[in-house]
Amino acid sequence: MENLKGYHVAVVGATGAVGQKMLETLEKKNFPIESITLLSSSRSAGTKINFKGEEYVVQEATPESFEGIHIALFSAGGSVSKKLAPEAVKRGAVVIDNTSAYRMDPEVPLVVPEVNEEDLKKHNGIIANPNCSTIQMVAALKPLQDAYGLSRIIVSTYQAVSGAGTVASEELRNQARDMLDGKEANAEILPVKGDKKHFPIAFNALPQIDVFQENGYTFEEMKMINETKKIMHAPELHVSATCVRLPIVTSHAESVYIELNQDGLEVANLHKVLQSAEGVVLEDNPSEQVYPTPLSAANKSDVFIGRVRKDLDNPKGFHLWVVSDNLLKGAAWNSVQIAESLIKNNLL
Amino acid sequence: MENLKGYHVAVVGATGAVGQKMLETLEKKNFPIESITLLSSSRSAGTKINFKGEEYVVQEATPESFEGIHIALFSAGGSVSKKLAPEAVKRGAVVIDNTSAYRMDPEVPLVVPEVNEEDLKKHNGIIANPNCSTIQMVAALKPLQDAYGLSRIIVSTYQAVSGAGTVASEELRNQARDMLDGKEANAEILPVKGDKKHFPIAFNALPQIDVFQENGYTFEEMKMINETKKIMHAPELHVSATCVRLPIVTSHAESVYIELNQDGLEVANLHKVLQSAEGVVLEDNPSEQVYPTPLSAANKSDVFIGRVRKDLDNPKGFHLWVVSDNLLKGAAWNSVQIAESLIKNNLL
Repeated sequence: MENLKGYHVAVVGATGAVGQKMLETLEKKNFPIESITLLSSSRSAGTKINFKGEEYVVQEATPESFEGIHIALFSAGGSVSKKLAPEAVKRGAVVIDNTSAYRMDPEVPLVVPEVNEEDLKKHNGIIANPNCSTIQMVAALKPLQDAYGLSRIIVSTYQAVSGAGTVASEELRNQARDMLDGKEANAEILPVKGDKKHFPIAFNALPQIDVFQENGYTFEEMKMINETKKIMHAPELHVSATCVRLPIVTSHAESVYIELNQDGLEVANLHKVLQSAEGVVLEDNPSEQVYPTPLSAANKSDVFIGRVRKDLDNPKGFHLWVVSDNLLKGAAWNSVQIAESLIKNNLL
Repeated sequence: MENLKGYHVAVVGATGAVGQKMLETLEKKNFPIESITLLSSSRSAGTKINFKGEEYVVQEATPESFEGIHIALFSAGGSVSKKLAPEAVKRGAVVIDNTSAYRMDPEVPLVVPEVNEEDLKKHNGIIANPNCSTIQMVAALKPLQDAYGLSRIIVSTYQAVSGAGTVASEELRNQARDMLDGKEANAEILPVKGDKKHFPIAFNALPQIDVFQENGYTFEEMKMINETKKIMHAPELHVSATCVRLPIVTSHAESVYIELNQDGLEVANLHKVLQSAEGVVLEDNPSEQVYPTPLSAANKSDVFIGRVRKDLDNPKGFHLWVVSDNLLKGAAWNSVQIAESLIKNNLL
């Protein structure tokens, strides 16, 4: 496709938490848009949304909605992507899909631009945006993998409720208010809307994100494990994950233990690599209590890293604390970055 | 000392979060008390507290307060313990100290009764109660260490604010209310009252508990590392910790990775060991969404374990999720258990 002045972009799931952030990001980053189409399920169709000062009416997404669309950003759940992404591709659109529908498909690149932008070249119309908790971790670890080699990751996550949608954020707020007023908390959404049981998240921690798999891991944990290996081109990398939902509205944090391939490294070596890496910001000065937190990282595009320290037993082991806005770098911003990269590399 | 019908017990720090729980626990567990003396700093002296239906006036703790005391439960900060515990011992009391003042003193046993009750025999008047986050972890891991041998622990904690005192719980509640009302949160206590900077804890996560050490670890992390080795009699055990404060009022949770010494173990083996262990309760059935949470463990004496699963790469590696009420097993209940054990073993 010739380099247009602007593109016809569709946002599928425009009324959702990520869809809203996608629109904000497209506007804020001044993405070259000629026209925009806002799509959703039939349930949310008719909603009015403001974009760049103009009011748009959200339309129900159908195969025909994608006629003339150059870039379609999908974030309306896996079943919508499975049904409509091929229809969009058939009509000439390139799909950037924020669901888990195509992430592990060997024909579909799974991309974090700072990590594996080159994989975009192999796309067949669909590019998958990784899981939020995976994106910030690989963005933080890729510079270290490049500099020193990486053999092992053990991560425990501290994840915000907005990853489960605006209804989950509302549930946290309502429960917090009720519990502060001495009332009982009503749980209907978390940990997983479609699962059998629901537990309060306010003033609590739920060691379940997404549904359990046969092996005792949750699907969220398996996403972190499998997606990390695919994005980092490291099938032999040892990765394990424990994913926990917390009473935080925005930003995921991660306690990450890594083993590098090189001996004799000090914190200063890692600091130097991370300081010059793209998309990550080092906030690490213990003596001045400088470290990132979910609140400090919210509404920012970068991945923030602190608490870098050497394991006290394993000379190749290090610990890090990685924080990022789960709706921006974890979803909307990474999707828009992929679109920017497709344009820059003439891959539309 | 002959076996009395009851003991004269002093609680030092009776008005604090842990002191209150100590009184509740002494009453609830029907500890053999002949008389009780409630002590505190001069600041809180004069406070009236109800115990077993009678009203007591809290007195300022002085060396003379300990005349005639058999058992003194200290929980009023390290400096009070350093000053007054030796005075109590001089006057014939046995001190059970809930601060970090004596924990790493080689002359002082550091005890979790289910783990190393035998160390009580070596006491010289003072017994140290371990750090809350350490207690629940060693209670969970000791049965596995006994059954299979243990070579490594990597823990990331999810800690409640009540571990920083009632003022921290109040701060969380006030901040949560303000933020729900769209106001700015005022931070004056957490992460560490005496440190330079303070950050909001409501809807946030703070990767700092206690002050930073030279090596980049916090004192809380070093407590977990050093105390675990001492309690488990395993100086060669590899232990690393990342400690995080969360907007949770009660109960600490821990994501624990362990490496055992034996090959070929399955989750069922670990379940069997944990099911018959003292002081721990297995709550682990992923297909029914059964796992412990801070809210489900609050106000209970036991240590709850869930999410037991095999590492996908290391055949000796396992992951666990360990939750317990930080003010009960993590502090008050463990202290009272130590007192019960001293009586049972004629060690007063």
